[in-house]
Amino acid sequence: MIDLLALCAFNAAYAHAIDSDALERWPAFFTEDCHYRITHAENEREGLPAGIVYADSRAMLEDRIAALRVANIYERQSYRHLLGIPLVERADAESAEASTPFMVARIMASGQTELFATGVYRDRFVRHDGELRLASRVAVCDSTSTDTLLALPL
Amino acid sequence: MIDLLALCAFNAAYAHAIDSDALERWPAFFTEDCHYRITHAENEREGLPAGIVYADSRAMLEDRIAALRVANIYERQSYRHLLGIPLVERADAESAEASTPFMVARIMASGQTELFATGVYRDRFVRHDGELRLASRVAVCDSTSTDTLLALPL
Amino acid sequence: MIDLLALCAFNAAYAHAIDSDALERWPAFFTEDCHYRITHAENEREGLPAGIVYADSRAMLEDRIAALRVANIYERQSYRHLLGIPLVERADAESAEASTPFMVARIMASGQTELFATGVYRDRFVRHDGELRLASRVAVCDSTSTDTLLALPL
Repeated sequence: MIDLLALCAFNAAYAHAIDSDALERWPAFFTEDCHYRITHAENEREGLPAGIVYADSRAMLEDRIAALRVANIYERQSYRHLLGIPLVERADAESAEASTPFMVARIMASGQTELFATGVYRDRFVRHDGELRLASRVAVCDSTSTDTLLALPL
Repeated sequence: MIDLLALCAFNAAYAHAIDSDALERWPAFFTEDCHYRITHAENEREGLPAGIVYADSRAMLEDRIAALRVANIYERQSYRHLLGIPLVERADAESAEASTPFMVARIMASGQTELFATGVYRDRFVRHDGELRLASRVAVCDSTSTDTLLALPL
Repeated sequence: MIDLLALCAFNAAYAHAIDSDALERWPAFFTEDCHYRITHAENEREGLPAGIVYADSRAMLEDRIAALRVANIYERQSYRHLLGIPLVERADAESAEASTPFMVARIMASGQTELFATGVYRDRFVRHDGELRLASRVAVCDSTSTDTLLALPL
């Protein structure tokens, strides 16, 4: 069965890829036909699926990272993810569903640090060739006001 | 023996109930004759047990949630708990004592997010009908100045 | 093999020693000839090892704590560490290497709380007389601007 520790280890590697600026490794945490979305709690309550960021394949995630690397619109910044212990809602040998809380700090080139985003990942994991992958990750932000600031993945 | 992973899973479910606004599920994490208290480090050092919130039964916790649901004095807000790994101080098959650090962010309806409370849970767990329950949770806040702002449970 | 849960438990005890003002217990988490350093990501990228704090023995860590206890230059404050799940990069029966993200809040005597430091521990653990010890911990802060404010260990 996919267990809590395996999900913890997966999430640690996921966050490390983003926060250490190894963004090119980020899409590989997902299946090829994955669903990835960033939204906020109010949208989710009202059944508005559009969200802030939307992708329905790993190729779209790769495009997003490629675009980030050439964009000049964002001030240089990094994130630091702190992820909680997953709440495992269902798990068997091949798949699992879990909710994992996150806090993300944003660190600007000036050194300024702020608590940038909080929320919960709503995840569906599958095992693919023995490795865990995200079939779906919806990052539900608690605040409605992070929309226009998002540069890096959550 | 009650082990670290079981405590981690318990805390994940506890935090999720509060942060997803399923507050009515919160009292069920405690035993019927539980002790629940919110205080701060300075009070604890001086042996002042009164604290900021005090309850000595699950019924009192249920009353508190019922009151929250009808109160209009609080601006609409939510919390996001990030809990650390418990430090297990004693554990056997039927009970355990542990200290678990927390950070709680508060998100106002306006979207404003702030690091609201930090501290440590001092916990005593018991096994009841095969399920873990809190016989006692004392949330010791690091700061003396969160008192009057507390709406939701820590 | 040194496993993820053992590292989690070690880190929980480490953070608790600092945050509960049991600073005299802090050096015992290290080997006698340990390497301990606080630096920031920009220094690391540029290969500047000097950092903000540097110690290459447990005795130096003990000296640092002794100095803290007599110093009057710092306003009274405490820290609250929230540590993520370690990313285990290598592990065998006798040693392990891991990266662990941290967020540290600082709480002043006035009650004022702020997100003070974020970053990642780059660690090398060894087993010594059956107990885990840090042979090396480099706390790489994300921000370049925490330098002059550091009073307590990270």
